[in-house]
Amino acid sequence: MKTKKVIVIGGVAGGAGAAARARRLSEASEIILLDRNPYISFANCGLPYHIGGTISKRDQLMVTTPEAMAQRYRIDVRTSSEAIAIDREAREVEIKNLETGEIYRESYDAVILSPGAIPMRPPIDGIENQRILSLRNLDDMDQIIAAVGGNQTAAVVGGGYIGLEMAEALRTRNIQTTLIECAPQVMGTADPEMATPLHHELIRNGVDLRLKETITAFEPIDNGLRLRFESGKTLDVGIVILAIGVRPETTLAVQAGLQLGPRGGIQIDNAMQTSDPSIYAVGDAAEINNFSTGQPALIPLAGPAGRQGRIAADQIFGRDSRYVGTQGTAICKVFDLAIGMTGLNEKTARRENILYEKIYVHMPSHASYYPGATSLSLKLLFDPNSGKVLGAQAVGANGVDKRMDVLAVAVRAGLTVYDLEEMELSYAPPFGSAKDPVNYAGFVAGNVLRKDMRICHTADLDFLAPDQVILDVRSAKEIATGTPAGSVHIPLEQIRERLSELDQEKEYLIVCRVGRRAYLCCRILEQKGFRARNLTGGYITYMHVKGLDAKKCPKH
Amino acid sequence: MKTKKVIVIGGVAGGAGAAARARRLSEASEIILLDRNPYISFANCGLPYHIGGTISKRDQLMVTTPEAMAQRYRIDVRTSSEAIAIDREAREVEIKNLETGEIYRESYDAVILSPGAIPMRPPIDGIENQRILSLRNLDDMDQIIAAVGGNQTAAVVGGGYIGLEMAEALRTRNIQTTLIECAPQVMGTADPEMATPLHHELIRNGVDLRLKETITAFEPIDNGLRLRFESGKTLDVGIVILAIGVRPETTLAVQAGLQLGPRGGIQIDNAMQTSDPSIYAVGDAAEINNFSTGQPALIPLAGPAGRQGRIAADQIFGRDSRYVGTQGTAICKVFDLAIGMTGLNEKTARRENILYEKIYVHMPSHASYYPGATSLSLKLLFDPNSGKVLGAQAVGANGVDKRMDVLAVAVRAGLTVYDLEEMELSYAPPFGSAKDPVNYAGFVAGNVLRKDMRICHTADLDFLAPDQVILDVRSAKEIATGTPAGSVHIPLEQIRERLSELDQEKEYLIVCRVGRRAYLCCRILEQKGFRARNLTGGYITYMHVKGLDAKKCPKH
Repeated sequence: MKTKKVIVIGGVAGGAGAAARARRLSEASEIILLDRNPYISFANCGLPYHIGGTISKRDQLMVTTPEAMAQRYRIDVRTSSEAIAIDREAREVEIKNLETGEIYRESYDAVILSPGAIPMRPPIDGIENQRILSLRNLDDMDQIIAAVGGNQTAAVVGGGYIGLEMAEALRTRNIQTTLIECAPQVMGTADPEMATPLHHELIRNGVDLRLKETITAFEPIDNGLRLRFESGKTLDVGIVILAIGVRPETTLAVQAGLQLGPRGGIQIDNAMQTSDPSIYAVGDAAEINNFSTGQPALIPLAGPAGRQGRIAADQIFGRDSRYVGTQGTAICKVFDLAIGMTGLNEKTARRENILYEKIYVHMPSHASYYPGATSLSLKLLFDPNSGKVLGAQAVGANGVDKRMDVLAVAVRAGLTVYDLEEMELSYAPPFGSAKDPVNYAGFVAGNVLRKDMRICHTADLDFLAPDQVILDVRSAKEIATGTPAGSVHIPLEQIRERLSELDQEKEYLIVCRVGRRAYLCCRILEQKGFRARNLTGGYITYMHVKGLDAKKCPKH
Repeated sequence: MKTKKVIVIGGVAGGAGAAARARRLSEASEIILLDRNPYISFANCGLPYHIGGTISKRDQLMVTTPEAMAQRYRIDVRTSSEAIAIDREAREVEIKNLETGEIYRESYDAVILSPGAIPMRPPIDGIENQRILSLRNLDDMDQIIAAVGGNQTAAVVGGGYIGLEMAEALRTRNIQTTLIECAPQVMGTADPEMATPLHHELIRNGVDLRLKETITAFEPIDNGLRLRFESGKTLDVGIVILAIGVRPETTLAVQAGLQLGPRGGIQIDNAMQTSDPSIYAVGDAAEINNFSTGQPALIPLAGPAGRQGRIAADQIFGRDSRYVGTQGTAICKVFDLAIGMTGLNEKTARRENILYEKIYVHMPSHASYYPGATSLSLKLLFDPNSGKVLGAQAVGANGVDKRMDVLAVAVRAGLTVYDLEEMELSYAPPFGSAKDPVNYAGFVAGNVLRKDMRICHTADLDFLAPDQVILDVRSAKEIATGTPAGSVHIPLEQIRERLSELDQEKEYLIVCRVGRRAYLCCRILEQKGFRARNLTGGYITYMHVKGLDAKKCPKH
């Protein structure tokens, strides 16, 4: 194989992985790994957990050292070294040694750009205040740890992954914490009703949650900052963690005249090749293809970055690996809950005009009679014609990761809801149920597709047609704590005897706690000549849609 | 739809599910559910956990009551009612009321047999002793609880699911417990090296583990039993739990003249139909198709039973549901470990002459820098030509169920190891790694298929060819605790400088802890013109194959 001189720019996740892969493919090639920081390959996903104290030692965050990488892989690791320009004509990278100030050039056969992303700092009055910090690398982390030491109050701006993890970290350190999000929900990559349990979990853990609040100014005050909101409210805090998202670090790519994509990332093809065939880009800065929508996307996650690094190295050494796109599988711990997602969400489906149906199930994470089972809420999006699984989201204290992984494979493999019905998953009481939530989701969706059960959604209950009636079939005890406005009540166990109370001219929208009793009720009514629809996910989903705390919904 | 009269025989898992499904499909049909016990639908998988005290209340084991089932589903539930004969010509079931002794007949349009299985009791001298108990239903459980109350010593005979769960349950109650297994390993549905960690876990938890011991006689002694072994040894215990497996309960099927399968279960087709088209069979008594081998199989698990019940009901009411076979996905908790499996294992592949290759990975259950990560050992079987995933097994303290479920879907969907490489699974430090063990298994298997890395197995180290040399590339500290006999030692970090010590005429079998350093070493050696093979799974798998406790293998 031809040896090459490869320069990898950026030594975390994608970059470090690409360098190691390149070495395995070509023992004789020259591989230079540049990073502007004095370290490489640190555990950036672990930063919030060291701030919170869950990861006690800072050393644990060092995945590898420049020395270890150099020794094992014989990679020329140059830390504190910034690539400041790429001379594509001369095929040289201009490098600045940040310790000495020296600037020099290195020729290359191929370059892998893995520059990552940088926290967004919107042009708000006062944004340059030293008390406004963001979290991206070890230095940021150290600064935040130093800052929280002397401050008893903090505001986290932004309710995405980092914002949520930081809110948890600060509360773990007993800091009085306000979480500010301009949207009506945290975790914008999930649908709003799936984020509702997170809101209540944040509040339960002492986070002062402020949704739909937009900051208009940061003003310095004694020992702190005053935040002014569009709503006219203000908030005084010691420090602010800004976590409203990241943007791809494209400075070098722009300097080099590489094409950017419509979302502002470095444009690449499925070989990770940029507009210059000798230059590859991977990770947060690269604009990849969304597997679900086919649209360009920026998905700053560690898993895809690693795979992309591998592909770039493969390509450089003559292997035709291709990236099939990112499906947005992700998970986030929020105190005792986790929220996970994969594939298409409803927001995106609507925006992209993708035809879908959705169902919800709420089930224990494992056999309910075995200790430790907690409620798992699962939302499934599927094609209403083919039954193809389009995407899923789940929230709960346990087992979210497992169901998301199973459904991630289903999405990737193009499986249908009928396949979910048949899936043979591992069952013993400590781990699952004989019918797993994934199977159940398949059953429910299959019932819809086979027209064994027609369903409706909370929005339908809010906008009843004149011939529609909401029928709540839960027990009186359950209904006492809440029921959709205007509903009539007949417990499922009495429905057969009380059919005469129903009207053949009406369509009944049936409500129970999770949708199982309503399913049986639908079957009974339909077979007796009535029209009926099941509110999928039942009153629990109804509460989630309404923003209510479903933990207060009693079991029957 | 035509209404029918359906008699379901057996009211647990498959039977209760079939009856409920039948009702949902046909509100007007007559559905009778018979069970010879005074209860139905109990959590049989939970029985050992109530004995051990993990499930504290007996009531928690009642999934539903005859009254609730009757009320909600309008099913004619008849407990303490045994179907003693089926008159296929008259289309009548003969039923005995076990409380009154009354015998009567019920006509039927269709019968669903869900009789379950019964514990095997081999014809060993003294097997009828009252101190020899087995666990199948609530009565058995109550008897065992009563018996262990007065006994401080117990022997569990059989190291399968029930045997292992019972050993744990008894130890949880602080009973001195001996586990006796005639095979050289517990959990016979796993390959032997995957069971090794279970052996050490049992011993660590105070179980007196006796493998390769066959009982020849049970002799009554004062307040107990003496077990005599083929080895000449004896053991005195208070009680014995017999858990050597179950056989299908086919008494009624045989009486009715239904065809049995080659494995002794009730023969059915993929519509769950027996040799009599009006009679269906589901669950532990039904002989189904093994998805991996295409051979008839008895797989007494709750998940498949539930799906089969649904299919039988569908068929009766004119829906052409089909059972695609059972792939043997299963999991068992053994103290702090879990062992899981899906699809083909190596034993079966050998027996059935199915071509396979195997690889092993050992990885932390989630990001190693986040607290609570434990080691997960994963074995993957795949087709060496197509790369199709054939089966997998895993053992570890955490995350076994998740990886087995992902791989169960891969097996079912016919995915390849290349698909495993690409899988986009949920990652955040508390839940996984950016490269999940499933991805890693895909990488390793992909490396084998792409011929980037040749591998070898422990058996190859035991029977070296004259030109083969074992090369251990771990650190001196690691090697100090053990290395394969006859190996030479060069730490990976020194290999490039010490190539002159190697011989181009030899083939090197490279050993490290888990196979990652050996992979890089293979790449270096192959590119330098040497022949090299990686011992897949490294010294950890080597220890597992040798029956050694890999917890004693230090990290580098």
